[in-house]
Amino acid sequence: MFRNTMPRYEILSADSVEVLDRGWRRIVSEIGIQFAKPEAVELFAKAGQRVDGDVVKLDPDFVLEQVAKAPREFDVQARNPAHNVHIGGNHMVFSSVYGCPFVREGDVRRDATMNDFRQLASLSQAYDELDSAGGVICEPNDAPLDSRHLDMIYALQTLTDKIYMGNVVSGPNAADTIRMTEILFGGRAAIERVPATISLINCNSPLRWDDRMLDAQFEYCAAAQPVVLTPFLLMGAMSPVTIPAALAQQLAEALSGIALAQLIRPGCPVIFGSFLSNIDMQSGSPSFGTPESAIGLLCTGQLARHYGLPFRTGGGLNSSQTADAQSAYEALMTLLPTFLAGTNFVMHAAGWLEGGLVSCYEKFIIDIELLRELRVEFTPLEIDEASLAFGAHSEVGHGGHFLGAEHTMERFRDCFQRPMLSSTANFERWLKLGGKDTAARAGDIWRAKLESFEPPPLDETIRAELDDFVTRRRRELGD
Amino acid sequence: MFRNTMPRYEILSADSVEVLDRGWRRIVSEIGIQFAKPEAVELFAKAGQRVDGDVVKLDPDFVLEQVAKAPREFDVQARNPAHNVHIGGNHMVFSSVYGCPFVREGDVRRDATMNDFRQLASLSQAYDELDSAGGVICEPNDAPLDSRHLDMIYALQTLTDKIYMGNVVSGPNAADTIRMTEILFGGRAAIERVPATISLINCNSPLRWDDRMLDAQFEYCAAAQPVVLTPFLLMGAMSPVTIPAALAQQLAEALSGIALAQLIRPGCPVIFGSFLSNIDMQSGSPSFGTPESAIGLLCTGQLARHYGLPFRTGGGLNSSQTADAQSAYEALMTLLPTFLAGTNFVMHAAGWLEGGLVSCYEKFIIDIELLRELRVEFTPLEIDEASLAFGAHSEVGHGGHFLGAEHTMERFRDCFQRPMLSSTANFERWLKLGGKDTAARAGDIWRAKLESFEPPPLDETIRAELDDFVTRRRRELGD
Repeated sequence: MFRNTMPRYEILSADSVEVLDRGWRRIVSEIGIQFAKPEAVELFAKAGQRVDGDVVKLDPDFVLEQVAKAPREFDVQARNPAHNVHIGGNHMVFSSVYGCPFVREGDVRRDATMNDFRQLASLSQAYDELDSAGGVICEPNDAPLDSRHLDMIYALQTLTDKIYMGNVVSGPNAADTIRMTEILFGGRAAIERVPATISLINCNSPLRWDDRMLDAQFEYCAAAQPVVLTPFLLMGAMSPVTIPAALAQQLAEALSGIALAQLIRPGCPVIFGSFLSNIDMQSGSPSFGTPESAIGLLCTGQLARHYGLPFRTGGGLNSSQTADAQSAYEALMTLLPTFLAGTNFVMHAAGWLEGGLVSCYEKFIIDIELLRELRVEFTPLEIDEASLAFGAHSEVGHGGHFLGAEHTMERFRDCFQRPMLSSTANFERWLKLGGKDTAARAGDIWRAKLESFEPPPLDETIRAELDDFVTRRRRELGD
Repeated sequence: MFRNTMPRYEILSADSVEVLDRGWRRIVSEIGIQFAKPEAVELFAKAGQRVDGDVVKLDPDFVLEQVAKAPREFDVQARNPAHNVHIGGNHMVFSSVYGCPFVREGDVRRDATMNDFRQLASLSQAYDELDSAGGVICEPNDAPLDSRHLDMIYALQTLTDKIYMGNVVSGPNAADTIRMTEILFGGRAAIERVPATISLINCNSPLRWDDRMLDAQFEYCAAAQPVVLTPFLLMGAMSPVTIPAALAQQLAEALSGIALAQLIRPGCPVIFGSFLSNIDMQSGSPSFGTPESAIGLLCTGQLARHYGLPFRTGGGLNSSQTADAQSAYEALMTLLPTFLAGTNFVMHAAGWLEGGLVSCYEKFIIDIELLRELRVEFTPLEIDEASLAFGAHSEVGHGGHFLGAEHTMERFRDCFQRPMLSSTANFERWLKLGGKDTAARAGDIWRAKLESFEPPPLDETIRAELDDFVTRRRRELGD
């Protein structure tokens, strides 16, 4: 887990924050938020909010009272305690891409399979830059639909010993995730004391929380497992085309979802979620890694801090079809602001391609390289007399070189970040090594990494109990 | 010319700035700076500085007194007044790659030619994101060595109407540049009133200014033409391996060069230059787009402001061999901090590949795309009631979409930056369009741009005078 102790880059004035604050207040109170689950509406009604069908007109001050019940920071435990994470403050937690129906491997783009899921989970385990494989690293299309959530959770629990995200397709899927988590961590009390899974609840923006997502939210919040309440905003489609409008809407949606979480279980840990980009107004396609999304990201961080909430933004987003230059610059156009904003929970941090339709193996490696570099870039310099190396200057003098200086010899092994993927080879040597571009080298790297992969050890009693559960539930689900 | 009115991202504490300040003072006073030109040493001696051979031990307060004579901001005129630039403050001026012996065009890497020079100058003229083609956009290896500076300056003067950089290979080359600039702008008085060319003076780091560079500097400063005094620091080779040491050395070198400029001609406009990266300690090769260089860049901006000087850093630097993912992420890893630092003069902003050995046509287009995006990203948001688009929410309601909303229809043409190079096409459409990756699409773009290129008009009397000068000088030089 990375701690980002560099300054935050904040671009909103106090006046702007106030305008946005008035904006979400007006939306929740005048237009209201739709909750497509009667139990949710009932909770709000009982708490004295005005209800009109499934639309709740919220008192903004009431919303903030609920929001204040959420912890500012919290822990999530992993089955390997070395991989526990802390969400909030200056901590940054990174997880892999989420939700892709396809995979890309070199020049081949195809339906994702359960084998891909296991491979991508293994890679997520193998790289220290990731704190989690995430959840649906890819959609395993060869696994039966009704029970594949069991296979995915099982893979995340056994191939990784990091935190993992819960299934949110339905209430029962969420309940299965919780039950499997109880098995892995030794019972309900253990995971209620320190949560052990974290789940993504998307808003059906604009201003509507859907039934299945709410079913899952109710399960997770009741079990005190954190939820990432995320407005899903592609400006021009799910929100107006002006960034301030999208930010006000994002506040209205996220804060209303967080208020609901607190009504379900006061004190339930939550994350202020953001997934904010825009559509290409010519093609109508989603665009990622855009300047508008970077601005939105920076503002989101500042606003989440304003309301005292840990937040999610960012990742290695891009619209590119292959692991080419565009995929890289769009990814970094999002990832660098992610660090500038000090995002607490970063989904899609490795592997995202083609607007999130594709989990790409090579892109996964490219993103790991970016995370490695950004971790160095966002580590404060230590500046003191010794760091000035005056002695080295005395030794080398005018017009000399420092290659053999004592100061260099003492530090050359770890003075600079060593690239894993990037090449500094001169042209002749690069040709001799096969003239491989970045994507081709990334292909070599992930294959070698997978080949040497050893799953982390797991207690056999627990594994057997998980096996039993999965077998039983699969039977019950008719698969 | 872009004005960056966003906040600066500053990462040095006041204490750190003080430590670095003590660092350069100690270097210039105890180790001193070598000036391999007797006239330079003489100027310092006359001004009361201690001289030991060609090494000058400088009084740091004397250095700062000289530095204070340099203007904080100044103009540089272009032959098209619409392309005049202002250097300093929140202004950012961008110029193309500089100094490459090779070019890359698709899969072909070859010696650069004068035709390449002309083509790259034309592309620099064609894109508004560049304020200058720079100087040696590539080294035209097919032009005679002694007179090729005449061909280059002539190409910059005739194919572009933007500011251009002067030749610095020798004093006479600098004098030729100045003479040709006088012809273009109507005489010496005109260019002394408002300078019309800007030149790069590199330090032979560590702590040595070489004779040829100094010869050029004397010419340019005497004519009141700005110079960019640039320590050339690859940490591990030309400076110690710690960033603070490199920063202190950079201050020592740049400030001593700036002091000399003020002794040559008090008030001569200067730019605090920085070219700061590191070598790969395994291969010994230069690395670019590294986290260390990004940190150095951010610190350099803050230090330059501390000493009240306009500064140069950044560009689209990278070590990659082709216009692939690495070339893109390393370029942005430098360019985004360039904007965060608010760099006043950015060299190598378009076309840099392979550690600066290659001017790459496709990379040129990729960089233009990055500049386009960053200009949007670093334009402050306007946040007021109207921008919140409350009416659009009322119109669309819960779970609807904004594609046809009145607010969207009024703004869809220019609400988001339209990509020039990036593709948001879905996979099927992308395949139908040829399945071209970013580099291939960039190839299409620069070829089309060149095909439609029209050089800016130039007064025929002036062109004839330039022709005469070039012909005469070429004869004198024996080419």
